[in-house]
Amino acid sequence: VSAASPPIGAFREEAGALCVLDQRALPDEERWLSFAPGPPALDGVCLCIETLAVRGAPAIGGIAAKGLAWLARGTTTTTAAAFVAEQRAASARLLATRPTAVNLQAALDAVGAALAAAPSQEVDGLVAVVADAAAAVCAEDAAACAVIGGHGAVLLNDGDVVMTICHTGAIATCGQGTALGVVHSARAQQKRVSVFALETRPLLQGARLTAWECLKSGIPVTLLTDSMAAFALARHRVALAVVGADRIAKNGDTANKIGTYQLALACHHHQVPFYVAAPRTTFDAGCETGAQIPIEERHPDEVRRPRGQRGFAPADVPVWNPAFDVTPASLITGFITDVGILSASALSAALQRQDGAGRGLEQRRG
Amino acid sequence: VSAASPPIGAFREEAGALCVLDQRALPDEERWLSFAPGPPALDGVCLCIETLAVRGAPAIGGIAAKGLAWLARGTTTTTAAAFVAEQRAASARLLATRPTAVNLQAALDAVGAALAAAPSQEVDGLVAVVADAAAAVCAEDAAACAVIGGHGAVLLNDGDVVMTICHTGAIATCGQGTALGVVHSARAQQKRVSVFALETRPLLQGARLTAWECLKSGIPVTLLTDSMAAFALARHRVALAVVGADRIAKNGDTANKIGTYQLALACHHHQVPFYVAAPRTTFDAGCETGAQIPIEERHPDEVRRPRGQRGFAPADVPVWNPAFDVTPASLITGFITDVGILSASALSAALQRQDGAGRGLEQRRG
Repeated sequence: VSAASPPIGAFREEAGALCVLDQRALPDEERWLSFAPGPPALDGVCLCIETLAVRGAPAIGGIAAKGLAWLARGTTTTTAAAFVAEQRAASARLLATRPTAVNLQAALDAVGAALAAAPSQEVDGLVAVVADAAAAVCAEDAAACAVIGGHGAVLLNDGDVVMTICHTGAIATCGQGTALGVVHSARAQQKRVSVFALETRPLLQGARLTAWECLKSGIPVTLLTDSMAAFALARHRVALAVVGADRIAKNGDTANKIGTYQLALACHHHQVPFYVAAPRTTFDAGCETGAQIPIEERHPDEVRRPRGQRGFAPADVPVWNPAFDVTPASLITGFITDVGILSASALSAALQRQDGAGRGLEQRRG
Repeated sequence: VSAASPPIGAFREEAGALCVLDQRALPDEERWLSFAPGPPALDGVCLCIETLAVRGAPAIGGIAAKGLAWLARGTTTTTAAAFVAEQRAASARLLATRPTAVNLQAALDAVGAALAAAPSQEVDGLVAVVADAAAAVCAEDAAACAVIGGHGAVLLNDGDVVMTICHTGAIATCGQGTALGVVHSARAQQKRVSVFALETRPLLQGARLTAWECLKSGIPVTLLTDSMAAFALARHRVALAVVGADRIAKNGDTANKIGTYQLALACHHHQVPFYVAAPRTTFDAGCETGAQIPIEERHPDEVRRPRGQRGFAPADVPVWNPAFDVTPASLITGFITDVGILSASALSAALQRQDGAGRGLEQRRG
């Protein structure tokens, strides 16, 4: 497995402070927010998640775990019971910052489980347990990204152009990213791969974050509006498209950022391979097909007033604003996962086993 | 033929002034610019075309003709020769405002031809000739819009939802518009038709102008980002899509606003009829296929800095910004024209005749 060292990340730890990259200020400004150990770190992390200063489900899970660790590092509790109570309250508060993020729940559960299983009854020992558990959450996500990138890079040749939507890179995860991580891995293998980034209306994660991360990482990038994808496939040589996923049903139907389905249709028409890159945590064995995936509809002003600006649309025009769409498995060439590249049918078979016996994809690891 | 009375227009004439709706200020403000007869009207019209205060090829042709008429109305020339010289100079100036607009050239030629054929050698008589010729340019465009709308309205039933891209309504023409004119006509027939308007990045004509015109005209409208078109077709019942055209090749391949091709692909996949609404002037018998249509690529800042705003993308990110794309005839259900609804093959046959003998579509009029 080869993985690029990501030159950037959603957060970093300095000697005395937990630092979070404020993604709201990108791409105009690279602003870092710094929080001291103890309550300031917890308050800061909660606010960062709530206000979308940090976004991307894996990155949210990682920073939440780090929030617990930095709260522990500055704790003033003197008994194990008080320490555990402080951690539990903090965990509940962090969980409430974004109600639907699966990774957030999983990260907090992992730290809580480590604490519950800890033999130490000294506060110092418990602080170390929490720190280690938080580090493990981040390391596991980074490792999954590296494995996904390694598998995906096999699909790319020197000189290839890759099309993608939304942002799935380093600052959305604790590692080098998922779909964009495939490009990072290919570049680390000295393949001169470049990116066609769709801007990703309404929230412009492609224009603001993917374009920024590519420029920052030395990856040649060309920005397109979402409406240009099909014509770009007609007029340019694009090797493949690779996108992330928010949730993958048992039959391979994939929920991802709005616009993904349209891109998949355009790729299908032009016979350009269309891949989904995602870790196992994205697969939902309890969901039969895409029809069962609930689609969040968000506020009309995301469409009417991009970046809070006026002058883009009538202030009161009705809007349909689904945050995600569902791409049917039939349009997906393959799934680039941390257990290899799977076809939709291989994925279904693995998830069938997982659903039946609690095994399947989980068992195939390593 | 039934046509709605458009409640709005790109320009209007008052007792002492030629008034132009400043489309740059839409949708936030309905600002009218007024110009007195004589040189102020000519200067004003030139500036309005150059700065895109008025846009839409038929509207540009109409306002240019009116600019000549209002210059004539305030002329201080006293001989026929001086009057004609003034008109010729004005016509040359108007032609230079937008170098590639076919309608602009045609409108100026029509007024010039009327003046050249005029028997009167009195200035007063020539002023009337120019006024009549300019009025005819506008009336012919309005009539073509009404006929297109009448033909297209046949395709729509009460309760239908129509999807469209860009702006093709009243303020883009001298009448009720082309593609959006079909909706105006259906509404005038008491069919409760509503519109799904794609915002049309990068210049947002759908969000700014189509949404505004629909609200202004009492047409129920829902605004979508361009990336939502395919998912909307999957989740909503859309009767048909209808779009305008910038240029139609002999085989039916159609150049129109970027995003049109992607919408046509999505309609094809969902078996939703996809129509192009355009007057005969849009058909180019000298162009065999879409491959021969040159595609204008515009400034990266249209993508990077929508409405002149910062914070949407890195300031220096490379951009591909084609203003138009080409939809192959195979994806187009039919052409709604001022000579009826034609299939691509019927269109090709008519254009073949026109190309060979200067007849064809032109002969079928009336």
